[in-house]
Amino acid sequence: MATDAQQACFEAGIKFGSLYHQFAGTPVSPSSTRSLEAAMAESIENQPHCEAVDVTIHDDRVADAIDHENGYTELTGSLMDVEMRIEYEGITARTRMAMADGYPLMELVEVVDDAGPSPADETDPNA
Amino acid sequence: MATDAQQACFEAGIKFGSLYHQFAGTPVSPSSTRSLEAAMAESIENQPHCEAVDVTIHDDRVADAIDHENGYTELTGSLMDVEMRIEYEGITARTRMAMADGYPLMELVEVVDDAGPSPADETDPNA
Amino acid sequence: MATDAQQACFEAGIKFGSLYHQFAGTPVSPSSTRSLEAAMAESIENQPHCEAVDVTIHDDRVADAIDHENGYTELTGSLMDVEMRIEYEGITARTRMAMADGYPLMELVEVVDDAGPSPADETDPNA
Amino acid sequence: MATDAQQACFEAGIKFGSLYHQFAGTPVSPSSTRSLEAAMAESIENQPHCEAVDVTIHDDRVADAIDHENGYTELTGSLMDVEMRIEYEGITARTRMAMADGYPLMELVEVVDDAGPSPADETDPNA
Repeated sequence: MATDAQQACFEAGIKFGSLYHQFAGTPVSPSSTRSLEAAMAESIENQPHCEAVDVTIHDDRVADAIDHENGYTELTGSLMDVEMRIEYEGITARTRMAMADGYPLMELVEVVDDAGPSPADETDPNA
Repeated sequence: MATDAQQACFEAGIKFGSLYHQFAGTPVSPSSTRSLEAAMAESIENQPHCEAVDVTIHDDRVADAIDHENGYTELTGSLMDVEMRIEYEGITARTRMAMADGYPLMELVEVVDDAGPSPADETDPNA
Repeated sequence: MATDAQQACFEAGIKFGSLYHQFAGTPVSPSSTRSLEAAMAESIENQPHCEAVDVTIHDDRVADAIDHENGYTELTGSLMDVEMRIEYEGITARTRMAMADGYPLMELVEVVDDAGPSPADETDPNA
Repeated sequence: MATDAQQACFEAGIKFGSLYHQFAGTPVSPSSTRSLEAAMAESIENQPHCEAVDVTIHDDRVADAIDHENGYTELTGSLMDVEMRIEYEGITARTRMAMADGYPLMELVEVVDDAGPSPADETDPNA
């Protein structure tokens, strides 16, 4: 029913929702950002069709978000950038999360058929 | 870049990953299944483009999964069925999670253009 | 080794950490606060020695926290009050989470021996 | 109201509940156990009064738990051992989680007054 490109996008979305809601709320400070980045990337890369995950937690934003004496904050989308690459049946979907108007926006960057576009390619029918 | 149908599928995936990883691990017993179903559905319906979420946690499976004296277990995909409907720019994506070979599989059920298919519709170029 | 009162406090802490980190990050809007409160309370009440959990998510704080067009926010400690009662071997521990200096503080309210106080302290007077 | 020893035990419980419910459900395979162990320990060590956290995820148990083709499983208590040390106002609380009768049991190992025992026990306010 769904095309391979649609399936690739569905898989890409699953990974983003998983990463965000598994790890949002994790206690984080500038001294623990590297280990959290690594765990987030490696855990989500376990999921099917997920070829690469890159997580950058910004130490300066974490430091700015620490507003009480305890010296840590909780991970939220505003503290990090995420990029992912999903491969599904010859389709590559690239996605990212970054701040847009103060809101962490998850977005599809591109969906490409690794065999290259064709006149009747479902990912761009009118090309 | 991405088509509306691909965006709809991406949004659908985000909701599934969110629901699963937000609520997996929640303590559950047959006496708390109804409130958890309601909270899961209503919380995810808050997300953009998410029109309907239906969660069924099977009391009998929960009861079977309680293998220690404490009288509860933790929510996992094998205990529930989920159906969702996403609407994005005139595209409807229907998804579900159900058991397949002992593994809870998230899948796209259908992706339809609410305006109806057209000869050049990007969701099914060769129709 | 540990006294019953200390065990009761340990159990009380487990419930608070569980509740917070299971549900922090859940999408919430004023229309979904009631179902989320119910699910949080009923799920944690499944845990051993947990007799009562009361969760109040403040609709006005949720509304104030919604700072983007999508109409929802993510659950954090600043949006709710929580009270719990733990019973362990005749000891009752009461705990609560409420805002203190802008930080959601989890605290032990009281630890009492249900048999009543004795001239020597209830926690382990003759050990 | 509560003694320092009771407070130490409450804090110890919070850390255990936090660790468990933040990370339960994380996708894990033998290739991602080390990064997840590090992130779990470092994140929870950010919390107040938490001096040391040691997480061991057993690769052999993870491998055994992978029961489908996708090559990963979800983190649960049965796959790991955890030890923690909490320091609160001169009291040290040691806790651990390990399997007991097939159930991951969180327990207080010891609660000691760093000033050393006194003829009357440290939890005894009338000492």
